[in-house]
Amino acid sequence: MTEPRIRVAVSTVIFTLRPTGGGAALAVPLVRRTREPYGGLWALPGGWLDVDEGLDAAASRTLASTTGLAPSYLEQLYAFGDVDRSPTRVVSIIYWALLRQDEVDAQRAAHEAAGDAPENVEWVDVDALPPLAFDHTDIVAYALWRLRNKVGYSRIAHGLLPDEFTLAELREAYESILSRRLDPANFRRQAEASGTLIPTDRFRTGSHRPARLYRYDRDVELAQRGPASPSR
Amino acid sequence: MTEPRIRVAVSTVIFTLRPTGGGAALAVPLVRRTREPYGGLWALPGGWLDVDEGLDAAASRTLASTTGLAPSYLEQLYAFGDVDRSPTRVVSIIYWALLRQDEVDAQRAAHEAAGDAPENVEWVDVDALPPLAFDHTDIVAYALWRLRNKVGYSRIAHGLLPDEFTLAELREAYESILSRRLDPANFRRQAEASGTLIPTDRFRTGSHRPARLYRYDRDVELAQRGPASPSR
Repeated sequence: MTEPRIRVAVSTVIFTLRPTGGGAALAVPLVRRTREPYGGLWALPGGWLDVDEGLDAAASRTLASTTGLAPSYLEQLYAFGDVDRSPTRVVSIIYWALLRQDEVDAQRAAHEAAGDAPENVEWVDVDALPPLAFDHTDIVAYALWRLRNKVGYSRIAHGLLPDEFTLAELREAYESILSRRLDPANFRRQAEASGTLIPTDRFRTGSHRPARLYRYDRDVELAQRGPASPSR
Repeated sequence: MTEPRIRVAVSTVIFTLRPTGGGAALAVPLVRRTREPYGGLWALPGGWLDVDEGLDAAASRTLASTTGLAPSYLEQLYAFGDVDRSPTRVVSIIYWALLRQDEVDAQRAAHEAAGDAPENVEWVDVDALPPLAFDHTDIVAYALWRLRNKVGYSRIAHGLLPDEFTLAELREAYESILSRRLDPANFRRQAEASGTLIPTDRFRTGSHRPARLYRYDRDVELAQRGPASPSR
């Protein structure tokens, strides 16, 4: 039995949808490294796994301590363990979550009120990432790939949009994630047929004609999630 | 920065479909442990990650050295890292694969011919597992849950059935995985509509009326798989 000199870390990819001029952009929080290796570069929030700490707990703790963020649910994404991904041998267990912009704002405001707002953190659009430490550019790309492939209508609606939203807002969220335009009529038909959205009696009014507000079906979302932590 | 005494292991869940009287049963290979902890109990094949070895390579190496099995593709499933899952602190990266019974047989025959057939290995039906070492019972249950939820028609056909198969054989594979009967007419309709199966001009003949043979659409399967190893 060998005793390899391998250390275990956790890092987290948090996606949010930020309003831009006329649309929305997918963004992630990055933390500027204050020490070597890669001192001064940006990296995903994270840290070392403690010997008396489970993986999920480590992901929550390191995310909170570096960014102040506390999503209600972090999902394990993948373990990255290439030999040369760091100057020393580190296996990183990656977690991810979707966080609505209003949750991001509320959590930041609470920390600012408490005088413990995190430093060295910045939200960056995923299509304008700076060079990242370690293999974190690959990790963000993989998380984006998973987001583009696996996330259904209800999950996006729950994770990135407010409680009630128009189908146009849902489509714009998808367009941001997929980095391409979607046909509004096709999108509406597929979203309505998905069985994961519930139309409300309320409408968004403004400069356009009134648009019906929808909410996601929590029962569907919970069924898709499965066991919150299969490792327990 | 702490230097936690945490070790990294890999283990693998291999599913195959074994013919039984009148149907098929899902089975996994287990390895009898020859040392403590849990000496004498059955466990998933696996071992320690070497310091100069990537995760995928470690999964292939430890699976081959314990069972002689060499699937063409191992997929990372999940990292299990609860504090109390082992007497010492071990984070296990779990891989999984589907392997057809004829591949299992051919690989065993090759090892027997070479005189290096593995010992202490046994295939066990997943609904008749003995008590397993560590949290391996939970790990098999989680892998089964993922198999039941995530695997599409083409993946099952590719992973567990021969190159050509009837829709009845595909349905029986699903029934084994789901542990319940499926309505033949509904199943046929859904499978045909899936776009992942290609009908051939050949038929299975025997005691029943001839049944058309299908093969899976490799293009669909490759698209679903995505990057073979996102960590590279």
